[in-house]
Parts: sequence; structure tokens; C-alpha cells
Amino acid sequence: MKVDGKSYRSIWLDEDGWAVRIIDQTLLPHRFHVPRLESLEDAARAIADMQVRGAPLIGATAAYGLALALRDSPSDDALETARETLMATRPTAVNLRWALDRVTAAVRPVEPARRAEVAYREAGEIADEDVERNRRIGEAGVKLIRAAARRKERGEPVNVLTHCNAGWLATVDWGTATSPLYRAHDEGVPVHVWVDETRPRNQGSNLTAWELAHHGVAHTVVVDNAGGLLMRQGRVDLCLVGTDRTTARGDVANKIGTYLKALAAREDDIPFYVAAPGSSIDWQLEDGDQIPIEERSPEEVRRITGLDGEDRTAAIRILPEGSPVANPAFDVTPAELVTGLVTERGVVPATREALAEAFPERARGGRAGEE
Amino acid sequence: MKVDGKSYRSIWLDEDGWAVRIIDQTLLPHRFHVPRLESLEDAARAIADMQVRGAPLIGATAAYGLALALRDSPSDDALETARETLMATRPTAVNLRWALDRVTAAVRPVEPARRAEVAYREAGEIADEDVERNRRIGEAGVKLIRAAARRKERGEPVNVLTHCNAGWLATVDWGTATSPLYRAHDEGVPVHVWVDETRPRNQGSNLTAWELAHHGVAHTVVVDNAGGLLMRQGRVDLCLVGTDRTTARGDVANKIGTYLKALAAREDDIPFYVAAPGSSIDWQLEDGDQIPIEERSPEEVRRITGLDGEDRTAAIRILPEGSPVANPAFDVTPAELVTGLVTERGVVPATREALAEAFPERARGGRAGEE
Repeated sequence: MKVDGKSYRSIWLDEDGWAVRIIDQTLLPHRFHVPRLESLEDAARAIADMQVRGAPLIGATAAYGLALALRDSPSDDALETARETLMATRPTAVNLRWALDRVTAAVRPVEPARRAEVAYREAGEIADEDVERNRRIGEAGVKLIRAAARRKERGEPVNVLTHCNAGWLATVDWGTATSPLYRAHDEGVPVHVWVDETRPRNQGSNLTAWELAHHGVAHTVVVDNAGGLLMRQGRVDLCLVGTDRTTARGDVANKIGTYLKALAAREDDIPFYVAAPGSSIDWQLEDGDQIPIEERSPEEVRRITGLDGEDRTAAIRILPEGSPVANPAFDVTPAELVTGLVTERGVVPATREALAEAFPERARGGRAGEE
Repeated sequence: MKVDGKSYRSIWLDEDGWAVRIIDQTLLPHRFHVPRLESLEDAARAIADMQVRGAPLIGATAAYGLALALRDSPSDDALETARETLMATRPTAVNLRWALDRVTAAVRPVEPARRAEVAYREAGEIADEDVERNRRIGEAGVKLIRAAARRKERGEPVNVLTHCNAGWLATVDWGTATSPLYRAHDEGVPVHVWVDETRPRNQGSNLTAWELAHHGVAHTVVVDNAGGLLMRQGRVDLCLVGTDRTTARGDVANKIGTYLKALAAREDDIPFYVAAPGSSIDWQLEDGDQIPIEERSPEEVRRITGLDGEDRTAAIRILPEGSPVANPAFDVTPAELVTGLVTERGVVPATREALAEAFPERARGGRAGEE
């Protein structure tokens, strides 16, 4: 999407055709910096330090990391070391393993001299496929926004509430939950986005608001507490969020706080949509409440980063050192609160039957990671 | 309540018997500082700068402010000037006007030489009455906690979720929502409190957590997003919050985000109680959705204060300067989501009939401000 008028992806090849550029997302929204990755180590560090985040982007970065490694040394040993190095950066990331497996499978049968070239091609395809999948999510989701626009006074924007960042920065381009928003905006459908701050890591105010501002989409940041009031006041036409993991029957595990917004949406008959690529569906799992909830560091709640009076990055402590903190990372929104899943194959009701019909090849085969 | 083993109120007379001590709440939770107020100007500044906050404490501080003014000069003119000075500090605070009216009515008929003495006595009574009212709220509310404790395994704590700070720091002592918690704790009923951070001003993590920690009550701070998950997981036995304004039928206007917790509580059959002194009831108003919602400064969302690496107070910017922000200060929880109102006259169902029966003299006479 656009940053100050120029089109970007979240990962791309530099002008020399081999080094990789990313956006350092740890510096957003205060600084826009595009580090150049020249080696396996650079790529591994970018993932480990969360300069890149979001399942699809982590996968693409890992794929390019293998390409950079093979450019330095194309041996079987080097390939194996590179795989292990990258896998260790975020050991629980399903997409990371999937991308590494895919590139490895493509390069292993190839003579060493051609391996880097094949790896670059495969990494490029992984990135392009992600963009295409998200574009399709936008194509499906924009219909919902267009329909909402027809019910508004002419020129009145469609008000969409989103939580966390399921934006282009979490993918290679378009994003998932944001894809219909960008599409609507680009088509000239007036849209305004309520951006939840998304404590404790503030991905909404740090990333989603930044994305929308730079692409020119009207938006307003609110604290996570505000969404219930906004819905009661009729100031939200629909909710649209992402998903970390979707169960076979359509329960949605997403960033902590999503569930509260889904409850408020139902209370006021506001549609609650979840942008869910097929790869997010765990076909082995029915009941979302069985998903173990990751408990993250209390420091995420105790400390916060921003700019001080001289515009220098500063981390401050907002809670006393020993203050007891719990920090569950996500919650589960049961399928009955989900109006529909916006997938690359259209908007699908959150039921086992509808999902299995939309993804018949996956529903049979279990979790596929990515297509 | 206690701070490091010593009993405190949020406002008290210094050892010399005339100067007034308060706790500077703007410095909490990082510093415990008890400024000495020696003049009208000191008292006005303490209210205006929000060193004291919460309706009952603002009222008591204003009353002592008049006493300090009359000690310097007991003339009719000085009395009127002092009233105006104090009224201007927080013009919309109902309790501020009520306390000033009460002290003024008491001192006006009295000869100037005795006015300061009468004002001190009246201010002391205002403070004592608040403490007694809150003690009674605790007496009523602790029964709910005792009952919940009987349903737990022996020794398992009763888990109470609260939002914002309806604590002793917002009153003269005990607090409203916290009063049953302190009472239970002091009686030896095991209680554990989930403390919502309460964005954007973080009154939960700054004030409620500080209070509970210093009185020795077990608690855990969570971001506002977490409560829904905690309730779904069965980790909350009851919710207990305060109210800024209660309508005649029991709708509750309280800190933004309260409504989302009430929805989650109903979803999982968790009792949702509101500590509501009779003075919070606006007998003229039925429908909470008619309460105008105060829109506060976007800077509350854009900036945050804490301690830097050298333990100095530091304010940082977490959002870009121009980022559009909305900052509604409270929301409305409709009576049907409220299990009961915990008042100084017992636990009352959130209905017009039950409230009018509990407060017959007020229900007839309209809003009384304070008793």
C-alpha cells in the first residue's frame, strides 16, 4: 500500500536485485526506516527482533533468508544450518516452518550453483501468493462495505471498527482485515475506521493507524474501552478484525479484547466479520476454548515506548516493578458471535459445514499451514 | 486504609490542627507525597491540578479550602471570593458545589470571629459522613463476597474484577467499589482483585493497584482487553465497579469500558454489581443513554507518564502529533446488565421501584447531590 504517495510492500528486493528491504516495524509509528538485509544473519535478526511480524510476512522473510544464505554458500550443510538458524527465531510460528519447508523442498534437488536462484524465485512466489490471497480477501470483503455504503446517506462514510493490526504490515501487502478497507478507499467508497489502541502492545495505534494515515484512509484512534459506547451510539456500521487461528467450526482466536467487541456488536445488531485466510483454519480443532492461551511477559504491560520531549525514543515504566500482572495474549470469540469469515474464497458463514464446503481439500486433509 | 502498615485517609488535618494534608494522587503509583495545604490557593490548586479527584474527596477538599480561607479572613467578601475560586476549579463537579453550599450555609449566620471554627467542623463532618457512608457500602457488599467465598473451595480466593478507581483515594476512606473488598480482606475472607488498567488515564493500574498493594489485598493488573477472557475461563466470581451517575431506573454511567465488562459478565452468568451511594442517583433521569458523554482531550490518549530509566518522571508521546483521536470519558451500562446496586442502605436491585423504596425521601425530591 502507499506511504507518502509511493507504493510499498512490507518486503521487497532492493535495486541490486539480491539484497532484501523491509520496514523496521519496531520503530513505527515514529520513524520510517527500511533496513537492508544482506545475509542470513540479517534476516534472522529481523524476525527475532520483530522488525517484521505477522505470519505471512515472517514466512516471506524466512524464505528470503534462505535465499541470502544460499547466495553465500549453496552446500547441503549451509542449507541445513540456515534452516535451523531461521527456525530458531520464532519456534512456534507455523508459517515460518511452512515457508522454510517449501523453499528447502524446491532447492534440495537442484545443483548447488543454481540453488540461490531457485530460492529467490520461490521466496518471490511465496510473497506474490500472499499478496494475491489478500487481494481476494479484499475483493470479497469490499462487497460488505459497498452494501453498507448503500444504506448510508450519500457521502456519509461507512464506519468500520478494527482491533489490533491485521494490516498490510502483517502480510506482504493489503493485509487481511484491512484489505477490504483499502479496496473500498481506492474505489472511492467513503470509509472511516475506528482503530482500537490494542493494549498492551498498541498494534492498533502504532501500526494500523500509521498504515491508514499513510494510505490516506480516514480513521480515528480510540482506547480499547471505547468500542462498546461507539456501537451503542450507532457510530459503528460493522466490525472487521483478523484471526490468529480459526477452528473448523469458526471459533476465532485473535488478539485479546476481540471477544469483548464481538459481544458489543451482537448486542447492537452490528455485523462482526473476521478476515480469515484459509491458512488460519485449524481443521483438527473444533472448540476454540481448547486453544491454549499464550501468557506473555508482564513487562509488556509494565513498560511502554514512545518519544520523549526531544523526540528521542524512550521506554518508561508505568507500573511499579513488583506489581502483579497477568498478560494473556489472545481470547476466543465463539463462532455464534461471528457474522461471517472473509476468506480468499468469499464470505463464508462461521460454521463447520460452510467452511468445509469453501475449503474441501483442506477440510479433508487437516491443517495445511498455507496453500 | 493502610499505607505500609499505617492508617490513612485521603485528606486529614495536620498535627497543628489547622493545615490540611492530602495525598498527591498525580504522583502515584511511583511516589507517595503528602502535600500540606495552608491556604485557599493551596486547596484550589490541589483540586484544579487533580492532586485530589473523585467526587467525595473533591467535596471534602473544597470544604477545607473554605475553612482555610476563613482562617485568613472571615469577612463576607472573603467568603464569597473563596467560594468562587473553589467553584472555578472543576465547574462541573456536583459535589464541589454541594460541599461549598453546605459550608457556606453553616458559616454565614455566624459572627466572623467564629466562622473558621464552624467551617472546620462542617468540613470534618462532611469527611466523616463520607467515611460512614462508604463503610456501610462495605457492610452491604461484603455479604456478596462472603456468599461467593462459601461457594469456593476452602481457602480459594473470591475473584473480583474492578474497573477504574472507585477506591479510598476517590473518597475520604474505604472507597465505594473497594469498600467491600477491604472489609472482606480485613475479616479474613480470601479475596483476589483483577484490576483493569483503565485506559486512557490508567486509574486502575496507577491508583487501585497501589491502594490494594499497600493495604495488602491480593490483586493482579490486567489490560482492559483481558476481562472477557478471564470471565470465559471462570476466573472471575463477580464484578464490582463504581458509578459516576446512576439514573432513577438504575442505568449506570461509569468510566469508559465498564459496559463491555457488563456484557461479558452477563454472557457467563457472573454477577455484575455497582457500588452506588445514594448521592450518585439522578432522580430526574430515567434513560442513561440521554446522559451527554464528556469528550476529553486527545492528549490523554496520545501521551503517557511514567518513570524513565533513572526513575525520573517522564511523559512520552505514544501517538504521532496529528493522529486523529476520540476520547469519550464514560459509557452507559443499562440497568438490565446490573445485578444489583451496592448502596449505603443495602444491595438494591437496579429498578426504579427498588431504588425509590430504598431512597424514598430522594426519589420524591429529585437529585440531592449528597445526603
